[in-house]
Amino acid sequence: MRILFSATATKAAPWVSGLQAALPEAEVAEWAPGAPQADHAVVWAPPQQLLDEQPALQGLFNIGAGVDALMKLRIPPQTRVVRLDDAGMSVQMAEFVCHAVIRHFRELDAYEQDIAQGRWSYRKPRLRSEFTIGIMGLGVLGARVAQALQQFEFPVLGWSRSPKALPGVRCYAGQAQFGDFLAASRVLVCLLPLTPDTENILDRDTLGRLPAGGYLINVARGAHLVEADLLALLDSGHLAGATIDVLREEPPPAAHPFWRHPKIALTPHTSARTLREESIAQIAGKIRAMARGEPVAGVVDRSRGY
Amino acid sequence: MRILFSATATKAAPWVSGLQAALPEAEVAEWAPGAPQADHAVVWAPPQQLLDEQPALQGLFNIGAGVDALMKLRIPPQTRVVRLDDAGMSVQMAEFVCHAVIRHFRELDAYEQDIAQGRWSYRKPRLRSEFTIGIMGLGVLGARVAQALQQFEFPVLGWSRSPKALPGVRCYAGQAQFGDFLAASRVLVCLLPLTPDTENILDRDTLGRLPAGGYLINVARGAHLVEADLLALLDSGHLAGATIDVLREEPPPAAHPFWRHPKIALTPHTSARTLREESIAQIAGKIRAMARGEPVAGVVDRSRGY
Repeated sequence: MRILFSATATKAAPWVSGLQAALPEAEVAEWAPGAPQADHAVVWAPPQQLLDEQPALQGLFNIGAGVDALMKLRIPPQTRVVRLDDAGMSVQMAEFVCHAVIRHFRELDAYEQDIAQGRWSYRKPRLRSEFTIGIMGLGVLGARVAQALQQFEFPVLGWSRSPKALPGVRCYAGQAQFGDFLAASRVLVCLLPLTPDTENILDRDTLGRLPAGGYLINVARGAHLVEADLLALLDSGHLAGATIDVLREEPPPAAHPFWRHPKIALTPHTSARTLREESIAQIAGKIRAMARGEPVAGVVDRSRGY
Repeated sequence: MRILFSATATKAAPWVSGLQAALPEAEVAEWAPGAPQADHAVVWAPPQQLLDEQPALQGLFNIGAGVDALMKLRIPPQTRVVRLDDAGMSVQMAEFVCHAVIRHFRELDAYEQDIAQGRWSYRKPRLRSEFTIGIMGLGVLGARVAQALQQFEFPVLGWSRSPKALPGVRCYAGQAQFGDFLAASRVLVCLLPLTPDTENILDRDTLGRLPAGGYLINVARGAHLVEADLLALLDSGHLAGATIDVLREEPPPAAHPFWRHPKIALTPHTSARTLREESIAQIAGKIRAMARGEPVAGVVDRSRGY
């Protein structure tokens, strides 16, 4: 068995040696043009040439949760595209979103500013019942985030393309129930896959339907958000603030208004990082399962794009 | 039945009317010198005169979790001192501690500084297995915090005066096991009651036994901490930082070094606030249970002080 590795902005050597150690029966190498035909490729945003030269790939393993970058490439028709379905990312996402929700709900950012200005302040506690959290996208990450938020007794809603059921979560589905979901969500968490259907979904219409004082947490992809629409709703006072971990252009240009906006907590795409060891173990397990003809989790439905 | 209310730094009127509404069979009034003999008092740091004038109180209800201020007063011997045992405080404490732990573990404070300086930074993810959280004090609050931290897959240890058992928590007890507990705790969370035994427990010896890079979260009482010892260990680099919600003097004087220390996240005693409605409901329920001769939770053992 031959396995190729190719990733932009990631050092290849530790992945190649890690995959080799996990799959000693295979031959693992970093891809270069003209590489011999391989059975699987492990990639992040690979060049089109790799896919054009490797028509016989059985598995194309994405070392991230979102496969939107891969879906823009021409992929051999019989190749199965497989995303990381957890590999330590869902607990990170739960952490990151809970931190953002608690920080906003408990006004810990405002307390921090008060302390910096020498003020020992008192703020009236807010009511948890008025901080319903709405989660867009109920896959592995969305479900884990919903579970974590419930531990803190927040009311949790979920919205997805097709109907889902999650314990303790009031679930909405499809365009028909989108408006009701938004109207009930004081905090909106975007964990959707990026597809042509979800690009720009966080626009003035969507964000404007949140209740006054609404708060946005985007931890999915920058292209979900129409940035100018968020700015307009923050400036009008309809939205109270936002936590933004992803942007259309990363890093954003120096003049980008999110860098220093007082109502935006910006982080450098760090909400859920790919953990190499966990990812290698998961991918190796899936490659072995495929070799035995067994089903594997995380196979992308290329018609819907995730 | 007659009930008195007396609290410093808290408006009496909403408490008196709330208690009256919850206990329509009783006569509820704010205490004043010379008030007629009452059956119960609901208090926060009341004057000694109240206790001297009311020798027949059956219940003395503290509207907070810690009764250390009450324990400094002379209380009639047969009066039962009752603390709030939850009343919405434990979920707040879980939130506050999880926010502090996640913020430190994920370096979200450092990312925030990077962004403020225009840097889109990358930091190597830390290993969760190297961030064992040690909780001192395993009462209602400590147990709830332990449960919440386990949701994020941190290893959790607990330490208490007498042996306790909590699901998923490796529990240590007493002075004999204190050193082992500290040596294993990368993050130390203090949720102890303040008693003569625990005053100054967070001193140079205790904090110095944490592993290098240790982190302190004090959400109990300011008098648990020897402030100069924390400063010395932060300055020496042995400790990486601290979240401090309580101080010996609140608010601290303007010259207090914690206001602007770069490694200290200071908050104004806001980790778990008394929520009036929940507290009134709980106290009313306990007063009724006592009237029926039933046992109530949260009765303070005055010999141990909590």
